[in-house]
Amino acid sequence: MTQTFGKVRPSSAGTTMWTEIAEQPEVWRRGLAERGRIEPVTTAVRRAAPRFVLFAARGTSDHAALYAKYLFEVVHQLPAGLISPSTVTAYGTSPDLRDVLVVAVSQSGRSPDLVQTVETSRRRGALTLAVTNDTQSPLAQAAELHIDILAGPERAVAATKSYTAQLLSLYLLVDQLRGGDGEAAAALPGAGDRLLALEDGVRESAEGHRGTTNFVVTGRGYSSATAHEAALKLMETSYLPAQAFSGADLLHGPIAMVDRGAKVLVIAAEGVGARAMREAITRIRNLGAEAWYVGSAETVPGSSAGIVLPGGLSEEVSPIAEILPFQHFALHLALARGNNPDSPRGLSKVTETR
Amino acid sequence: MTQTFGKVRPSSAGTTMWTEIAEQPEVWRRGLAERGRIEPVTTAVRRAAPRFVLFAARGTSDHAALYAKYLFEVVHQLPAGLISPSTVTAYGTSPDLRDVLVVAVSQSGRSPDLVQTVETSRRRGALTLAVTNDTQSPLAQAAELHIDILAGPERAVAATKSYTAQLLSLYLLVDQLRGGDGEAAAALPGAGDRLLALEDGVRESAEGHRGTTNFVVTGRGYSSATAHEAALKLMETSYLPAQAFSGADLLHGPIAMVDRGAKVLVIAAEGVGARAMREAITRIRNLGAEAWYVGSAETVPGSSAGIVLPGGLSEEVSPIAEILPFQHFALHLALARGNNPDSPRGLSKVTETR
Repeated sequence: MTQTFGKVRPSSAGTTMWTEIAEQPEVWRRGLAERGRIEPVTTAVRRAAPRFVLFAARGTSDHAALYAKYLFEVVHQLPAGLISPSTVTAYGTSPDLRDVLVVAVSQSGRSPDLVQTVETSRRRGALTLAVTNDTQSPLAQAAELHIDILAGPERAVAATKSYTAQLLSLYLLVDQLRGGDGEAAAALPGAGDRLLALEDGVRESAEGHRGTTNFVVTGRGYSSATAHEAALKLMETSYLPAQAFSGADLLHGPIAMVDRGAKVLVIAAEGVGARAMREAITRIRNLGAEAWYVGSAETVPGSSAGIVLPGGLSEEVSPIAEILPFQHFALHLALARGNNPDSPRGLSKVTETR
Repeated sequence: MTQTFGKVRPSSAGTTMWTEIAEQPEVWRRGLAERGRIEPVTTAVRRAAPRFVLFAARGTSDHAALYAKYLFEVVHQLPAGLISPSTVTAYGTSPDLRDVLVVAVSQSGRSPDLVQTVETSRRRGALTLAVTNDTQSPLAQAAELHIDILAGPERAVAATKSYTAQLLSLYLLVDQLRGGDGEAAAALPGAGDRLLALEDGVRESAEGHRGTTNFVVTGRGYSSATAHEAALKLMETSYLPAQAFSGADLLHGPIAMVDRGAKVLVIAAEGVGARAMREAITRIRNLGAEAWYVGSAETVPGSSAGIVLPGGLSEEVSPIAEILPFQHFALHLALARGNNPDSPRGLSKVTETR
């Protein structure tokens, strides 16, 4: 520790966040190896045969919920929605939730609004599932079912490994529900290793953006979650306005902000979601906006303009890997701007809202 | 029309948007007087007794959907969600939607993704309702039920009167479903007149913000919709990054952006949502952030710091009125920055996404 004008400052800013980013392939290997832990949940959900899925989450975990919402809708053809916890906690709503699976996602499992939402949902007939990083947390205890995301202790305020561990857990559940054994996810740890090795290029790009005043992040389909999470990482660590829009919503208004001065971050891996991004990408290019891409060789226009994702990742699991370059980008942008991403101002690790 | 360097420019920028803002009390009077048009829809929804409500919308209409989502959840205790149209249009999802009410909201009724979502939903067993400003639109034709929002032709690209007409229509439906006759909404036109009369003060505040580089807008509960819509108006007309967060989500990360340089717009009318905002407001004040308020006499700290809403508005209908000062704010900020809010760059009135 270095003492600077009376303020204690870690000697190496960003070390905690950097370390946790780097742990991700290992976290995924563990999550995959212990995928048997999810089977009791799969069995219980299959038995309940829910007709609707509702998610309750905040912050980073809300982006994991968004990813799972798409998965349940597309893979299981189940209508799904995101609960606004305030309807339960502030307005005292207590809806009839028979035939509903309620999934609460939270790293700490300690936000009182989520605990209350799960308790109310369970009382009103829902099958409740908590996805947390702490089996002893109030949320894990409140829900009928629990999945441990096995991310290990997370200390950086900006969540990284717990986010992708949440995504992997939710993917494995959806995949088991269709009778899969997580095969498509087996490519993830190797892909993660390869993405971590691209850090130098990401750092250069991030440092080149140190003067950027605001970002727009866009992706579609499963990658909408990546766009929202990338934007949140930039807000948390660099305090910059960063806004996520689906490629379609972007065209319904916010595109007006994007001109030659705006910096756009684009996620367009392979698959349906990326194809649905084509119109937005064409508009962004025609506007002359400067963009940085994470995607396939087809969408990334040049090596300095982004990161080409390793091949062999299915569209369903791609969001688990494709956030890594954005985590590095946020980390190095914060450092380049003189901020310590390990201890963002105004934030603490566990946020308790009511 | 004035000819300027070969470009046709309206002689008086913002006139169309200003006129449509000013029409709103009259639009509400018409919508209330003709509330009988909603009764057949109320009857059909009551008969179908849906167990779940899904909304499909984009842009401004998506904020009307967010308002209605809270209303259906709180008033009717029905779980509700927002459809991601791309799951239908890009991924070809076709979920089982028996017992589901699908509500598509669109001013023009002409976005192909919404039409396709309604067609698929109807085929898969949902009761479908279109809420549009054009009875002849493809969306109105595709749905089993239709509510005409009666806003009259809207020409400004930044939607104003169609937004509040959507809110009023959706409120009247929810209220009729519980046996009400829209009584609480009767106070709206008078409140609208009084809010329009406060334009000069709003203009001064907006002009004082001409150098602001980014806004954070926050509200909670029913007023979450107001926060999102206010942010979109600022993006569309002033091309500034403006981000909406619920008072709770703000504390889960984005609060890191808010410091003495950030400008915060706060909605805190009376009621449950406003009480749930107290923690966020305290945090914003403790951070020393400059804020502009639309709310009750209790939350607005001084006459130059915001607009006190007229009394007598119930929390349920308040969002219909409370957006007016933000519409004026966005209009006058755009004019102060030399932009013409009637014709934002990069946008056209009808956005067709797939």
